[in-house]
Amino acid sequence: MNAQIISIGDELLIGQIVNTNSVWMAQELNKLGITVTKISAVPDTNEGITDSFLEALNKVDFVFITGGLGPTKDDITKKVFSAFFETTLIINNEILQDVQRFFSIRNKELTEINKQQALVPKNGITIRNKCGTAPGMWVKKEKTTYISMPGVPYEMKEMMLESILPKIISENTLPSIFHKTVLTSGIGESALSDLIENWEDNLNTQNIKLAYLPQPGMVRLRLSTKGENKKELEALINKNIELLKTIIPEYIFGIENYGSETSLMQEIVVEKLKTLNKTVSVAESCTGGYLSHLFTSVPGASAVFKSGVVSYSNELKTKLLNIEETIFSNYGAVSKECVTQLANNIKNITDSDFGIGISGIAGPSGGTEEKPVGTVWLAIATNERTITKKFNFGGSRQFNIIMSAQSALNELRRLIE
Amino acid sequence: MNAQIISIGDELLIGQIVNTNSVWMAQELNKLGITVTKISAVPDTNEGITDSFLEALNKVDFVFITGGLGPTKDDITKKVFSAFFETTLIINNEILQDVQRFFSIRNKELTEINKQQALVPKNGITIRNKCGTAPGMWVKKEKTTYISMPGVPYEMKEMMLESILPKIISENTLPSIFHKTVLTSGIGESALSDLIENWEDNLNTQNIKLAYLPQPGMVRLRLSTKGENKKELEALINKNIELLKTIIPEYIFGIENYGSETSLMQEIVVEKLKTLNKTVSVAESCTGGYLSHLFTSVPGASAVFKSGVVSYSNELKTKLLNIEETIFSNYGAVSKECVTQLANNIKNITDSDFGIGISGIAGPSGGTEEKPVGTVWLAIATNERTITKKFNFGGSRQFNIIMSAQSALNELRRLIE
Repeated sequence: MNAQIISIGDELLIGQIVNTNSVWMAQELNKLGITVTKISAVPDTNEGITDSFLEALNKVDFVFITGGLGPTKDDITKKVFSAFFETTLIINNEILQDVQRFFSIRNKELTEINKQQALVPKNGITIRNKCGTAPGMWVKKEKTTYISMPGVPYEMKEMMLESILPKIISENTLPSIFHKTVLTSGIGESALSDLIENWEDNLNTQNIKLAYLPQPGMVRLRLSTKGENKKELEALINKNIELLKTIIPEYIFGIENYGSETSLMQEIVVEKLKTLNKTVSVAESCTGGYLSHLFTSVPGASAVFKSGVVSYSNELKTKLLNIEETIFSNYGAVSKECVTQLANNIKNITDSDFGIGISGIAGPSGGTEEKPVGTVWLAIATNERTITKKFNFGGSRQFNIIMSAQSALNELRRLIE
Repeated sequence: MNAQIISIGDELLIGQIVNTNSVWMAQELNKLGITVTKISAVPDTNEGITDSFLEALNKVDFVFITGGLGPTKDDITKKVFSAFFETTLIINNEILQDVQRFFSIRNKELTEINKQQALVPKNGITIRNKCGTAPGMWVKKEKTTYISMPGVPYEMKEMMLESILPKIISENTLPSIFHKTVLTSGIGESALSDLIENWEDNLNTQNIKLAYLPQPGMVRLRLSTKGENKKELEALINKNIELLKTIIPEYIFGIENYGSETSLMQEIVVEKLKTLNKTVSVAESCTGGYLSHLFTSVPGASAVFKSGVVSYSNELKTKLLNIEETIFSNYGAVSKECVTQLANNIKNITDSDFGIGISGIAGPSGGTEEKPVGTVWLAIATNERTITKKFNFGGSRQFNIIMSAQSALNELRRLIE
C-alpha cells in the first residue's frame, strides 16, 4: 500500500514553521509498511488544495491531510473537500456535542463559528477529536481514501494513533518492512561507493534498497526491504551487513536498528568512553567551543568530559595552558608542535585519560599561502603517546568548525578502538 | 513571480530527516517577493521525480530542486533531468577542474565516479559548487526554469546566496517588496500574539503580512508588503512599527532592515562589542562550550572574544578558575555566589572587559527538589559591577543549553546598551 501526505497552510510556504507533522506521519506509516510516495505542503487556497488532491487521485491508496481545519476564516479545506467529493456539508450531532462539551468544560462561550466545526461531508466517515474541536474526515473517491486531520500536532497524533491507523490495520493486509543502518566514517560518499559497488549491485537483485546518508564526518548506509515475513527480511538484511563488514571493516563503526538510532558521533564516543571508564578534556582554538559542546550535548557526558578550554590568542594559550612562547615564534599556533602541547597540557592539567588539542584557520580571514583557510592541526594525547593529524578542509567558517570537531571525535573513536 | 520547491530523497519519505532545506529556501524566496506555491518531497525514483517536474511545468516561474546529486547510485536525478529536458549529459571542463581541485587539496584520489560529478545537461547553465563537488544546474523548459542543487544544506545555501538568487534578481523585475523585522525578546510567541492581536488585525487591512519567526531566546516579527512605490511601502511599515513600539516597548530590542539582517543574537552582540572596542570571556558549566561556540561562530569574533573555559567538575572550577572551595560547600556550584566568582575570575584571568559565568542543571539527571533540571544561574561582570540572574527553563537538555546561552547573550546585550 502507498500514501501521500499533504499539509495545508500558508505558514509552511513562507518558511515560518517546519513541517514536523509530515515527518512524524511518514515514520508511523513506514513502520506499518505503507510506502509514502510524496509529501507536499500547499497553501490555504482552493486551487492549491484541489490540485494536490487531484494529483493523488488513483495514484495512491491513502492521502493523509493535515491543517486547514480551524474555525478561522483562512481555513477553507472543508469547502474544498465537499466540492472535490461532490457532496454537501451537514451538521454531525455527535461532533456538535463534542464541541459543546469542549467549550463548556473550559467555561467558554460557544459561538456560531465554533458550531460550524461540526459540519462534515455527508458521504464520509467522521473521526472524533479527543484533544480539540476540529473533527477528522475520511472519504473515499474512486480508488483513493482521503483522510483529513487538524494541523495541531498533538490532535493529529492522537487521531492517527487512536483511530486512523487502527482502522487501516484492521481493514487491510499490510506488508512487513525492515530497515537497518550501517555507520561508516573516515571515507567519503564517492570513495565508499567505489569500494562497495559489487555488494551494492547484489542488493538490488535481492530487492534491498540502499541509501547513502552523508553528514559531517560520517556516511550512514541505510538498507531497507519489504516483504511478508519480518524474520526473513531481518535475516536477509543481516546477511548483507555481515558481508559488508568483510569488505570495509575499517570504516564501519556501528549498526543502527530503525527506531533506536544513536546516529551522532558524539553519542557513540561518549558511550565508548563510559564503557571504558575513561575521561577526556579539550583545548580548542579554531573550533571555539564547538567540540566541547558536542561532547556536553550528550546526556550524562559529565561522567567522561572533564574540561574544555578555548584560547583564541597566543597569550592566553600560554597563560591558561602553559604553551611555550617559543612554539609560536618557531612554528606558529597552527602547527603540529602547538597542538601536541595543547593536547598534552590539557590532559595533564585536568588529569584526564585523553587530551585533545585543535588549532587551525577557520576563516574567512587569517589564511596564508602556506596555511590557507581550512588548515587544521589535531592532536590526541594519552599517557603513552600522542597522535597528530593535519587536515585541509578549505571550506566556509562553519564548515571548517564542524569538520574539525567531527574529525576530532572520529580520531578519538579510532584511538579508543 | 512564483515557485515550487522539490526535495528529492527517500530519507525524507521515511521521516528519517526533517526537510529544513525547503524551510530555508521558502524564507529566502519570500524575502525577494517570490511566492512559493508548493513544497514537495519525492523519492529517488524516475517516476517520483518526473511526475513532480511535470506537475510544476508552466504552473510556476521557477522550480528549486535539492538532493539527488551525489556521486552514488541512489542519485538518479541527473539522468531524469536530461530525459525530462530532452538533452544529453556532457562533461563540463570547468566543473571537472573544480572537482579535481577539491580532491587534490584534500590529498584524495579522484575516482571515475567522482569525475561523473562534472556531467551536466548540454542545454543548461551550470552553477559551480564552492563547498562540494556536485554542481548546480539551471535549465528552462517552456515557461518554467528548473534549478537543481545538492541536498547538503551548506552547499545549497552557498549556491543560492552567491549564484542563484543574484542571477534571478538581475534577470527579472521583481515586485517592490518591503520587509522590516522587529526583534523581540523575553516573551513567547503565543503570549506575544495575544498582546498584539488588534495591531495585527489592522495590518491585514493595510495589505501588510506578518510572520512570527521564533528562535531560541527571541521572536522576530517580520512585516512585509508588496507594491509599486518603495518609499510609500517603507513609510507604511514604519508607521505600524512605531505603533507596535507603544504597545510592547519592553520586549522590542531592535529593528532589522531587509538585506542588513544580523538576525542571530550572537551576531548582534559581537557587532556591538566590536563597535565599542570591548572584549569578553566566558566561564561555562552547564552550557558546556555552547556559549563560546556561539561567539566564535561569528566571523571576526577573535577581535572581541578572548577565551572560554568549560569546567564541569568543582575540582576543575577551582583549579582552572580559582573558585573558592567554600563556595561549593556553602552554596553549591549552581548558585549566585558561584557564578559571581566564575564571571569575575574569568574576566580578571583573561583581562577582558566582560566576564560571563554560567552554572546550571542541564538535565536530564542531576536535578533536586530545590534546584530542578533547568535551573540556571548567570552572572556578567565588568570592572564596575556584577549582575546576576536566575532562570528556570525546565526543558530538555538541548533546550536548557540553548536557552542558557541565548539568555547570556541577551543579558550581555542589555548590559552593553
